Parts: sequence; C-alpha cells; structure tokens
Amino acid sequence: MASKEDLKGLFTPVLTPFTASYEIDPERYVKFCSWIVSQDAGLACFGTNSEANSLSVGERIELLDRLVEAGIGPEKLMPGNGACALPDAYRLSEAAAKLGCAATLMLPPFYYKGVSDEGLYRAYADVIEHVGSSDLRICLYHIPQVSGIPITLNLIERLVKDYPETVVGLKDLSGNWDNTKAVLENFPDFKVFPGAETFLLQGMRHGAVGCISATANINPGPIAGLVAEWQADDADAVQTKLDKVRSVVTEYAPIPALKAAVAHHSGDEAWRTVRPPLVELDENAAAGVVEKLSSVEFKMPGLAEALS
Amino acid sequence: MASKEDLKGLFTPVLTPFTASYEIDPERYVKFCSWIVSQDAGLACFGTNSEANSLSVGERIELLDRLVEAGIGPEKLMPGNGACALPDAYRLSEAAAKLGCAATLMLPPFYYKGVSDEGLYRAYADVIEHVGSSDLRICLYHIPQVSGIPITLNLIERLVKDYPETVVGLKDLSGNWDNTKAVLENFPDFKVFPGAETFLLQGMRHGAVGCISATANINPGPIAGLVAEWQADDADAVQTKLDKVRSVVTEYAPIPALKAAVAHHSGDEAWRTVRPPLVELDENAAAGVVEKLSSVEFKMPGLAEALS
Repeated sequence: MASKEDLKGLFTPVLTPFTASYEIDPERYVKFCSWIVSQDAGLACFGTNSEANSLSVGERIELLDRLVEAGIGPEKLMPGNGACALPDAYRLSEAAAKLGCAATLMLPPFYYKGVSDEGLYRAYADVIEHVGSSDLRICLYHIPQVSGIPITLNLIERLVKDYPETVVGLKDLSGNWDNTKAVLENFPDFKVFPGAETFLLQGMRHGAVGCISATANINPGPIAGLVAEWQADDADAVQTKLDKVRSVVTEYAPIPALKAAVAHHSGDEAWRTVRPPLVELDENAAAGVVEKLSSVEFKMPGLAEALS
Repeated sequence: MASKEDLKGLFTPVLTPFTASYEIDPERYVKFCSWIVSQDAGLACFGTNSEANSLSVGERIELLDRLVEAGIGPEKLMPGNGACALPDAYRLSEAAAKLGCAATLMLPPFYYKGVSDEGLYRAYADVIEHVGSSDLRICLYHIPQVSGIPITLNLIERLVKDYPETVVGLKDLSGNWDNTKAVLENFPDFKVFPGAETFLLQGMRHGAVGCISATANINPGPIAGLVAEWQADDADAVQTKLDKVRSVVTEYAPIPALKAAVAHHSGDEAWRTVRPPLVELDENAAAGVVEKLSSVEFKMPGLAEALS
C-alpha cells in the first residue's frame, strides 16, 4: 500500500498503444510502461494524453490490472478515474483503491457545461462516499481548456475541508502559472503537480511536489532528473534543455507527435496509431518530429530494447 | 422493425428520474415515458436533457430494455448512442439496432477538442462498420455549445455519401437557424430535426420532418400537434403559445426546471432529483417555474394518473 507521502515526483500520462483496428494492445502497453518506470517516472495512466477518455471503463481496468500483474508497484501508479457518469467513476476509483495506488487523477464530469461548484462538490463527494475506502486518494485534474470545467479554489477548499485524507492534490494543466501559484499559496499541504514541465522548476521553487507531463512519455529520465535535482546549480540550464524538447512536440498535435517519436525510436511503427476522433501524423509530419527532436540532442535510452 | 420513413414527428429527450441516492429509477421512468407516448410523442431517450452523459452505458441499456418490455414500440425510440469511447458507442448502437429502433441520436466523441472532420468521420464510420447492421440508423447530434464539437456540412456530406442508409438525419440544437437551413438545403433527403420547438414551424416550412425538444417533456401534446398540423391556418398562433411555455423553462437551468414542473404536476417530489454535477432548483425557484407556467395556461393532462 502506497502512502500519501509517496505522492511526489514525475508521473507520465502514458500513451496507450492500439492495434490497426483500434483495439487496446496490452502487451505493448506493459512494455512501454515498464520502460518509463525504469527511467524513474511514475505512471499517471489514463490521462488526457493516454487517450483515456477514448477508452471504456473496462479497458482502463484491464490495462491497470496488467500493470500490476507485470509487477509494477502501486506507489508508481496514479490512474485517471474521472468520468462523466458517476457509476463509471465509482468503478475506476474502486479499482484504484483496491490496488492501493499512490493516488488517482480525477477529472470533473465534463459533458454538462456551466455547472456550479456545488454540483462539482457533490460529484466528487458522492464518489468518495460511494467508494468509502481510506485507500482512495484523489489528485484533482484542472484542464479547463479541454474539460470546459475549471476546478476553482472554492471547490478545492470545500473538498479539502471535508475529505482531507482523500483529496490530497491537484494537477494543473491550465497553463496558467498564476492559478498554480494561487493553489500552492492557499493550500500549503496540498500536493501540487504542474501539468507540464514548462513550470517544473518554477513549481518546485514554490512548493510543488513534482510534475505530470505528456512529454515524459519520450523524455522521462531528464524530467525526473530535474524533479529530483531542482536545487542543483545547473537546474536552470536543465530546464532550458527540457523546454527545447517540449517545444518540438507542441508544434504538432501532441498525442500523435509523441506516438510518432515512440514509433521511430522503438522501430515499431504500430505505435503511430491513435484512436478516433484523433488522427495520426502523416509521414511528412512524423519525419519532421523525429528530425527536430534529433536536432535538440534528443534520445530515448533503452527504449528499443525494452519494447522489442 | 421501424423503417427509415418512421423517422419523423416529435421526439422527446426524456428526463431520467433518480432515487435520492442518485440511482436510476426504472419504474418511474417507464411510467413517464408511457405518458409521453400517450401524448403522440416519441422518445429520444438518452439525450442531453436526459442527463444521459451522467449515465453509464449499462444503465442506458437497462432503461432501454425496460421500455421495450413495457410494450413501447421501436418506432417510438431514438436512443442516444454517442460516447467519448468507441467501445461504449458500439454497445449502445448494437443495442439500438437489435431492438430495431427508429434511429439513434449520436453525439460525436466530445472530450478531445479541436479534432478534425477526418477524425470525426473515422469515429462515426468505425462504429457503423463495427456494428455492421442494416438496422442501425443514425441521426447526427449537433450541439456544439455543449459538446464543443460541431457537425460540419463537410462531415455530413462524407458520411451520407458513404453510409446513405445509415446516416439518415440530424438534430440541430445549435440554436443557429442559418445552420439548420443550410443542412436542409444541402441535403434535401436528410431527416432534419430542429433541436427546440423555437424553430419548429420555420423548420417544417423548409423541409424538416419534426422536432426534438427538451420542452416536450412537459408540453408534448401541443408540440406534437403543431408538428402534425403545421399547415393549419392557426399554426403561427400555436407556435406563439409553445414559445411562451418554452420561455419559462429557459429562464432557469432547463433540466432542473423541467423536473420541477413534472414533480409539481405529478405530485411526486422525487422527480426533482438530478444527478451531480447538476443541482436541483431550490424551493423558491421551483415554485417560480410552476407559477409562471400556470400563468401561460400550462397543463400536463393525465400526468398525475399516469405516474401514480
């Protein structure tokens, strides 16, 4: 069983591999996750960059079970458990609590727009009460530009007051540093993860406990290194190097771009497949990603061996 | 088995009743649906106003089965089958095709934003190919202000060209008459349903086949009457009366307001419950809805008996 204090470091919203007919591919998944763990990063499996909202609840639970069967420790796992429908969130949360995962990463229900903090409070509280387990730990997931549903300071305050042992942190992928800073300042015991390494160093210097970043799918070692060594003399120089890799990815649609990089560096083209409604990069764009990454001295050490 | 030509008239995105602990309530559901059918309206069960995206796939299929067991004919059914995850859309679409429903009402996958028409085409086409049934008929669901994902004319054109017997219509709840008109003009054989009775008469005069409206939960008879008698001399006067009822509902959050009206007119307060993230109207607001509806000579004939 992982403890609340294990909730720190780098977590990767792991890419999900699919077959050509868009089925999940558990073998490729486990190998890739094992490689990420070997690079000192944890697994925020079923994040936005995992195409998790394109997976059924059953598929997510199957993949989670496969990771545990493969011997990956629960302290490395922060599965996504947010869903539009409460019964789906129950199932995902129960599975994570039963496995003793370090935490869960919980989107608000995201179909209905303009909902109130009262309604969001009820949704989170209902899942917590329904699961009824002291092993459930929730990291709120703030990504308003995609979900359409912001996690406000008011909502955090209510949840932390009523469920201090369960609602333990926040991933902030809003890209708005002022918001991250406000959460850090208002909730000093809260485990805050900037949602991209862009704010890694700035975050650590203000009390963040780590980072959750899509780019950790291709650059886990160096990002994890900066999380561990953020007080080192060369920290700013390391941050600049990380930013260069990220800036290549964000020139493209990030999920297909990350998959193109994994495909190239593993020598396994099957990795390029994304599930609709996403579309893979065309050949030219995929080659562009690879070329630009190589121009910033990018490597994925041990990937080809791990995925063979 | 319903035929393509059955796809016309008024369909109601039926409200879903919940118990106090937010469980679905199949008995209340079947009674309410039977009342709506008795008022000459069909059931677009699992629309936005059904809180369908707050229901699991299993819950939706259970409710659909209950309707059929209760003897409601498949020609009256247009269940929602859109989902973020393809496997969820497969299950809902297979269930609807197997029952021979008049059609399905299909949202695009709605988590990922800024997706391309190519990606949306693939998502719809994949579900159609996976289900592989000539009994599947799809009415596309255009509600960009909630889903964040518009159904463009380009997308409709591609889908109709490749799946003319399956992709047969569109519900337009954008509130943008110019869009409804463009679809009617560009696809004369398409079954177009304005997503609110606001554009009912205007729609019928330009070739729409009916209407799908939230307000049909409380005002089904008069709306169905105008769909049937849109060429009558007093049609404009009837439209004006419908608009008055609708304008009361849209002063409030529509789903809780509709539920407040059903609760009052059936004498069953349990109807007021909504599932989080929605929140029911407070007592004052609920009383306000009832009072304002009564001031526009609003009635729900036979509801109390049907729900008792």
